[in-house]
Amino acid sequence: MKDLKQVAVIGLGLLGGSIASGVLRCFSNVRVVGYAHRPATRARAEQLAVATEIVDSLEQSVVGADIVILAAPISTFENIFEKISIKLPAGCIVTDVGSTKVLPHRWAADKLPGNVHYVGSHPIAGSEQRGVEFARDDLLYRAVCILTTTGKTNPRAVQKLERFWLQLGCLVKLMKPAEHDRIFANVSHVPHVTAAALTNATSTKELKFAGKGFMDTSRIASGPADIWADVLLSNTENTKKGIDKVIAELLKLKKAIDSKDRKQIEKLLAAARKKRQALIDYKVNQKEII
Amino acid sequence: MKDLKQVAVIGLGLLGGSIASGVLRCFSNVRVVGYAHRPATRARAEQLAVATEIVDSLEQSVVGADIVILAAPISTFENIFEKISIKLPAGCIVTDVGSTKVLPHRWAADKLPGNVHYVGSHPIAGSEQRGVEFARDDLLYRAVCILTTTGKTNPRAVQKLERFWLQLGCLVKLMKPAEHDRIFANVSHVPHVTAAALTNATSTKELKFAGKGFMDTSRIASGPADIWADVLLSNTENTKKGIDKVIAELLKLKKAIDSKDRKQIEKLLAAARKKRQALIDYKVNQKEII
Repeated sequence: MKDLKQVAVIGLGLLGGSIASGVLRCFSNVRVVGYAHRPATRARAEQLAVATEIVDSLEQSVVGADIVILAAPISTFENIFEKISIKLPAGCIVTDVGSTKVLPHRWAADKLPGNVHYVGSHPIAGSEQRGVEFARDDLLYRAVCILTTTGKTNPRAVQKLERFWLQLGCLVKLMKPAEHDRIFANVSHVPHVTAAALTNATSTKELKFAGKGFMDTSRIASGPADIWADVLLSNTENTKKGIDKVIAELLKLKKAIDSKDRKQIEKLLAAARKKRQALIDYKVNQKEII
Repeated sequence: MKDLKQVAVIGLGLLGGSIASGVLRCFSNVRVVGYAHRPATRARAEQLAVATEIVDSLEQSVVGADIVILAAPISTFENIFEKISIKLPAGCIVTDVGSTKVLPHRWAADKLPGNVHYVGSHPIAGSEQRGVEFARDDLLYRAVCILTTTGKTNPRAVQKLERFWLQLGCLVKLMKPAEHDRIFANVSHVPHVTAAALTNATSTKELKFAGKGFMDTSRIASGPADIWADVLLSNTENTKKGIDKVIAELLKLKKAIDSKDRKQIEKLLAAARKKRQALIDYKVNQKEII
């Protein structure tokens, strides 16, 4: 990418650190400037050399950037947009990697100057781990990255950002922010709530007998509580609807079990099995699973 | 084990096939006689050489056995106990590897002759795969195996069966059948129902955007519907109670999200995270996770 000289990454956790080091690996002659709120994180990021340079001023981190990426908690975006706005170079692209997109678009419209281009990003990558120590320069390889746009989004900025994620190894898809938040409530936020609910419903004593099934079903419940509270609070209506749908399906199964209706139990379990198999087939076909 | 010459394995799916081939690997001079209901399964088991001999008569399979292991669906146990009872050698041990234990104990007491010893077994091993093709002779290595006993169970039979599972690499724990079924409703059967409910609650179109989190949370929903219907139908009361507990926890989270109560959301998510971390620490400590 000849039109890319400098990338700023704000927030150097698992995802921010992985993006920064991924840019160093996948692009030649691109400077990566990293910023993190906590001095300890900046020191670790410096030690791990995830960026070309780590700076200790949020505002300074965006000076000279062609692309600015927010990889901090969603609840900090509004404030960050406001703070960096005076230093953003004209024509630069601002994006974020938050797990919800309606509010970031709203905050960007409110807080960013008219001469920069905001596009939402959501790379579907991560783990239940947190912190720059777990950053990997190939975390985004073959990850789906959703770009969110509205009628007002600059098409050339979208194209440039798309090329950026493609070069990091992502599979890029475009979506409207509201569509994004509805879909990801159901495939990500509600599963997170469900994993937490399942874990909370089981006593520590009983959990000693948990096998691989329980461990997998609950894995995402090990994710950081503050980050996930942020996500849920920025997508409340969709998440609430999704929780209701899970409860409705649980009650269907409970009713079938209560009336010892083998046919209905098998029907419900077989439907889930079939749907999940179709999903695996799709992902293998898309080469998301290799 | 000098007092073990012959083992019969009835049912040659993933678990039965793995036990049969595990015995061949872990014991010397022990004959393994395998039986499966379907001719096609017997033919595949023969090809894969999971047992010393595959026979095509259920009754004949137990002749000469020191230990008889039922690895068929739970709903077939009562009938199998009845059919094999006339051929069971005096003093032999009969066990099963079903995921629930109260009903197998009841059926054994009803159908097995007084001169054989029934002990329940539940090796916590398996996968969402099914069939003898997926059998592995090390599937039970470091798996927990619960033995269930009542006041009437012969202590020497328990000891012998315990040595058997230990030699296959299991970590053996003893329990009463009712305790077993209550615990495993919560750590296994309810998670299965939850994974299926979560999958059924999500549309196929949306699922295309599912990431690793959803895939793990829903993995066990790919298990065989008929086998799991069997399990749920043999543990209805405990499973229903467990489903109610999960729904109660989902509603707690929904309420906190609805009232945008960040403190309460973080508290609930952090409780789940902490509980799961304690579980991982316990399992690492027990060397169940290496």
